[in-house]
Amino acid sequence: MEKNGNKTIKNQVVDNFDQIVEGQKFSDWYIQNITQAELFDYAPTRGCMVIRPYGYAIWENIVKELDGQFKLVGVKNAYFPLFIPESFLTKEKKHIEGFSPELAVVTHAGGEKLEEPLVVRPTSETIIYHMLSKWIKSHRDLPIKLNQWANVVRWEMRTRPFLRTSEFLWQEGHTAHKTQEEAEATAHQHHKLYIDFLRDFLAIPVLAGAKTESEKFAGARFTLTMEAMMKDGRALQLGTSHLLEHSFPAAFDVAFQDEQGQMQNPWCTSWGMTTRTIGALCMVHGDAKGLIMPPKVAPVQVVIIPIYKVGQDNAAILNRAQAIASQLITHALRVEVWGDEERTPGNKFFAAEQSGIPLRIEIGPRDLLENQMVAVSRLANPATGKADKQVLSSLEPYAVVADLLQQIQAELLQRAELFLAKHTLPGAVNLQGLQQQLQEHKGFVTVNWCTSKDCEARFKEFSASSRVIRGAAEENSVCVICQKPALLNIVVARSY
Amino acid sequence: MEKNGNKTIKNQVVDNFDQIVEGQKFSDWYIQNITQAELFDYAPTRGCMVIRPYGYAIWENIVKELDGQFKLVGVKNAYFPLFIPESFLTKEKKHIEGFSPELAVVTHAGGEKLEEPLVVRPTSETIIYHMLSKWIKSHRDLPIKLNQWANVVRWEMRTRPFLRTSEFLWQEGHTAHKTQEEAEATAHQHHKLYIDFLRDFLAIPVLAGAKTESEKFAGARFTLTMEAMMKDGRALQLGTSHLLEHSFPAAFDVAFQDEQGQMQNPWCTSWGMTTRTIGALCMVHGDAKGLIMPPKVAPVQVVIIPIYKVGQDNAAILNRAQAIASQLITHALRVEVWGDEERTPGNKFFAAEQSGIPLRIEIGPRDLLENQMVAVSRLANPATGKADKQVLSSLEPYAVVADLLQQIQAELLQRAELFLAKHTLPGAVNLQGLQQQLQEHKGFVTVNWCTSKDCEARFKEFSASSRVIRGAAEENSVCVICQKPALLNIVVARSY
Repeated sequence: MEKNGNKTIKNQVVDNFDQIVEGQKFSDWYIQNITQAELFDYAPTRGCMVIRPYGYAIWENIVKELDGQFKLVGVKNAYFPLFIPESFLTKEKKHIEGFSPELAVVTHAGGEKLEEPLVVRPTSETIIYHMLSKWIKSHRDLPIKLNQWANVVRWEMRTRPFLRTSEFLWQEGHTAHKTQEEAEATAHQHHKLYIDFLRDFLAIPVLAGAKTESEKFAGARFTLTMEAMMKDGRALQLGTSHLLEHSFPAAFDVAFQDEQGQMQNPWCTSWGMTTRTIGALCMVHGDAKGLIMPPKVAPVQVVIIPIYKVGQDNAAILNRAQAIASQLITHALRVEVWGDEERTPGNKFFAAEQSGIPLRIEIGPRDLLENQMVAVSRLANPATGKADKQVLSSLEPYAVVADLLQQIQAELLQRAELFLAKHTLPGAVNLQGLQQQLQEHKGFVTVNWCTSKDCEARFKEFSASSRVIRGAAEENSVCVICQKPALLNIVVARSY
Repeated sequence: MEKNGNKTIKNQVVDNFDQIVEGQKFSDWYIQNITQAELFDYAPTRGCMVIRPYGYAIWENIVKELDGQFKLVGVKNAYFPLFIPESFLTKEKKHIEGFSPELAVVTHAGGEKLEEPLVVRPTSETIIYHMLSKWIKSHRDLPIKLNQWANVVRWEMRTRPFLRTSEFLWQEGHTAHKTQEEAEATAHQHHKLYIDFLRDFLAIPVLAGAKTESEKFAGARFTLTMEAMMKDGRALQLGTSHLLEHSFPAAFDVAFQDEQGQMQNPWCTSWGMTTRTIGALCMVHGDAKGLIMPPKVAPVQVVIIPIYKVGQDNAAILNRAQAIASQLITHALRVEVWGDEERTPGNKFFAAEQSGIPLRIEIGPRDLLENQMVAVSRLANPATGKADKQVLSSLEPYAVVADLLQQIQAELLQRAELFLAKHTLPGAVNLQGLQQQLQEHKGFVTVNWCTSKDCEARFKEFSASSRVIRGAAEENSVCVICQKPALLNIVVARSY
């Protein structure tokens, strides 16, 4: 997005969209802020990233929450090998076609050339189905619901930290079922689990639905996706849930004896979410001052900054700050006290804002005497453009702090929902209209489409693609490209 | 270990050592039990393993506990790339000599031959020090304490599930300090943390101390180790903590400006523990019936088995079992109810014993009426050789169950400590004595040693090696090999 964006749209936006892009490209804003907030650093290995402690703490919070959700629905974790014999990937034709350009291959190990090269897993369906063929014998062995937290490698030409890297961290869930109906329901169940998680934990609203035939997973019968909108209007796919083709487990001889004694291939699903969510958090919630972490996922939810004065009893101020921190920590809040005297309070405010710590508490000499504290939200008040300051009692800090954090979490979701709604534009009825909306208005464009791959391919002329199927085409509508009768209503957008 | 073991030793043993080996090689017992209890399965990739849900749940419990301990001492988690440019490993001469025979190398990626091959990390010192050279500028940046939970690859010729596999999971901690003293103290701090963790959480006692020059980590000034004794008398190294040579960070230009404005290289430590601990748990605590899981790490701490009767109200029995489970689960115990009618109670007892579930609770028709339950420990009573059964009130089950679990945890540690003490044999004063103790008595042998590498190399004649330095040699003692004056007292043993 260029800084000379369209003025009409600028006035429509409901948050700080324009503040971010003023004077700076969004992609530069992103790299600068994730680097300075120490989420990320460039690795010496091409296309790979180093996730620094502040970034990894976000991932740990995501893992803990998602893992708990999976366990509630009966999923069990396991671990499968990093290396997959090359021949495994070729057993499912569409799968190998989809992944072969992205594979990293081990040809030598232990000082010798390997007889068969080993592929570094881009995803684990093939090796997991090989194991399922040993474990599944009878209908009594089904359903199986497994998940793996692991690193995977897809050799990408163009990379961007967190969003698209040659190595990334993810979870991959794999289930096997007796019937297509049960497998479909499971794919939808996990899709919904992801949507709820993104909304309730990361405060990220999405447009959710199926991918088109061209965009679905290599080997899937259908792929369900969630598309979030970044602050520059581009789409980011935040996780997928697939029903695999029935031929996929069959290719690995996964079969069970049903109640009637007949051998059948099970129906399988897979579903994954990645470290990309960390990038999405930054690109959905950030503003001109830096990142904004939703309280539920924030590595540091509250930073307490003592305001020292020359000639005052600064030790007492620091003690009070630590006492407040202790009370909050006993309630399992994540709190830091920045008590050093090397940085000025202004330096600390700046750093806390850039890192996106949702709530700042200041304690100065007068606050100490009057048993109070100043609470400053990371969110700017839309009316004033500045953060609201509140003077609060410091005697029972937990209840008020918990309440403020809850408000910030809710406010972030509401702002993101409004942003998504404002920038999801209907009504492009032909190529010119689509082009204008994508280039001038940014955001998502909903169009009617005939379902032909040729028409879908033409979205590329505007560096866009079909992101998600919204449902049946509007009544009596025609395809935005060929003007023939339309069948589906889809979202078209530029994406990461 | 052969089944015709020495009778004298058999009578000395304090637990079921002889029961395990009767009629079966220990290595066969191990593979059979970890396979049947579904901890592990062979992977199609040579030397790699599949960790099945029951095995992975053990790892999850280990990770949670260790990770919490690390965080308490100020360690932060991060993530570094899987692939390391080959040239990085050659920067530290001893390091590359130590690891080059074990490396797996990616030569092709994205359909093309790479300009520089990428090594799949065998450990991450080199790539982490490359990053530290960017992050460390001043003495104010130190100390840095990082940890990574990750998979690593060391291409092994002879593999054994959990104990030695080409890919394994581990944590690797890396710290950098201003002074050698501080770094040394940190290496010892983490060594002690590991020892306490093994004793208090896994009920595994160890002999702890430094490795000899020949056995230390490639690039370390010193390596601290913990050696546990398996049920066949062999040693298993369960984690190490290293002070790195000062030249190691220097090779990667890691330097800081000290308080006087001079540039210095920091002193670094690294320390790791792996999925090998899962194998150790099995080999330290198992018996003829199968595995025994110490309650603190057990994936399932309590299994409740309803004893159904024909013509009785079995639903009421199942309901009671589930009510007891619910009460235990609200206290965060890990409990399963095996309520199916397909397996007999005997089948269920057998499976629970093989899996090593520490406590079994039975509920039959009379127990239901009398508000009682039968609790059966997984541990055999040494006097009777059978498990003790206790009839307990089922009205307030948590307190009694928690107490029983605590007793089982303590008893397992005590048995392992007695076993280690009984099979740690002093007094071999020459080659013949050493040979006899290693071959006939199994276990650890403590010997005095002159510190020459030639003498140390001769332990290999008995398939043994020096495991850990116990301290200075006994007064006026001579080397067990060359009979020259001894300097150190060390443990020699066969090992995994």
